[in-house]
Amino acid sequence: MNDPERFEKQMAFIREIDKEKLIKRQNYITDGETHEDDADHAWHMAIMTLLLKEYSNEDIDVLKTMTMLLTHDLVEVYAGDTYAYDEEGKKTQAEREAKAADKLYGLLPEDQCEYLKSLWLEFEECKTPEARFARAMDCFQPVILNDATNGKAWKEHDVRLSWIMKRNERVHLGSEDIWEYERKKLIAPNVKNGNIIDDNDN
Amino acid sequence: MNDPERFEKQMAFIREIDKEKLIKRQNYITDGETHEDDADHAWHMAIMTLLLKEYSNEDIDVLKTMTMLLTHDLVEVYAGDTYAYDEEGKKTQAEREAKAADKLYGLLPEDQCEYLKSLWLEFEECKTPEARFARAMDCFQPVILNDATNGKAWKEHDVRLSWIMKRNERVHLGSEDIWEYERKKLIAPNVKNGNIIDDNDN
Repeated sequence: MNDPERFEKQMAFIREIDKEKLIKRQNYITDGETHEDDADHAWHMAIMTLLLKEYSNEDIDVLKTMTMLLTHDLVEVYAGDTYAYDEEGKKTQAEREAKAADKLYGLLPEDQCEYLKSLWLEFEECKTPEARFARAMDCFQPVILNDATNGKAWKEHDVRLSWIMKRNERVHLGSEDIWEYERKKLIAPNVKNGNIIDDNDN
Repeated sequence: MNDPERFEKQMAFIREIDKEKLIKRQNYITDGETHEDDADHAWHMAIMTLLLKEYSNEDIDVLKTMTMLLTHDLVEVYAGDTYAYDEEGKKTQAEREAKAADKLYGLLPEDQCEYLKSLWLEFEECKTPEARFARAMDCFQPVILNDATNGKAWKEHDVRLSWIMKRNERVHLGSEDIWEYERKKLIAPNVKNGNIIDDNDN
């Protein structure tokens, strides 16, 4: 070990991010009873990226996309989870998360801090092929779980179609194919059966 | 979408692996109360790989190593988790997991089935640099959590030093640096304070 101080910084970060496993999301996993945790969600999307990369509109660096998805919710260790349809929470979300990113990534050696912080910003800005595909996964994955649990979390929160369409408006920028599937096979049937409130039927 | 049947196979797999989030491990996460689930564990090790790859004895393909770690426990969706120190369970583990791999990976299109199954076998055989590093992570990560929770799971199972040394005997093949840290900074202090039973003090 050439640089024990560097290793201790990496270990401090590795211990701290363990807390992501305690952050519960509103979604249920497919048993319909257990709330998903943030680490579960990230894990699922990393594997989805590996399997679905062929549907990306543009070529993507798979390792970078997976890393972005594995780490982009880490700020929630300090900032907490903000539900996709929590309009009050979303007003302060960016500020809370920026502070959290400085604190959390600051545990790491400088090179790794800068790298992970830059990936988190890239995800937030959604301007690269990797960020666009990652964002598509981040929207698509909870829709899969909601569909698989007969819309349980949607019904608990009286979720409207217009909210879902707004939330998912950039999925097609990552993958036209996935957006087509999501819209036709997951969203439309759940509007038809009433799991999603149709406020947009003109 | 050129091949909807292919996409449906990928989706069936993505839905099925969601069950990994329900498989609880014996380890506690750092709050000392919550059992870690398999997906949490895989997520943690994927990020650890990204941060600690510089300590690998040999150059590794990081994407391959992360993919191996993200997927290597998927067989437990059907085969269940076998605790590291469950000697009875370990007798039937290989057979149970081989059957589970055929069933689970068989949901995927053939090319992806073959790829993920080959990675799972590569991890099990532990003969490549990526498999050696992945195996080191798989041993090191629960030791970090046990150390962070004052040896809670070790004490619940009366874990002996000789068991830990046997379980970790290949960590040094992946990383001499990580093994040195694990041995000196995590294992030794927990033997000294009695969290690990010292049955090997000659």
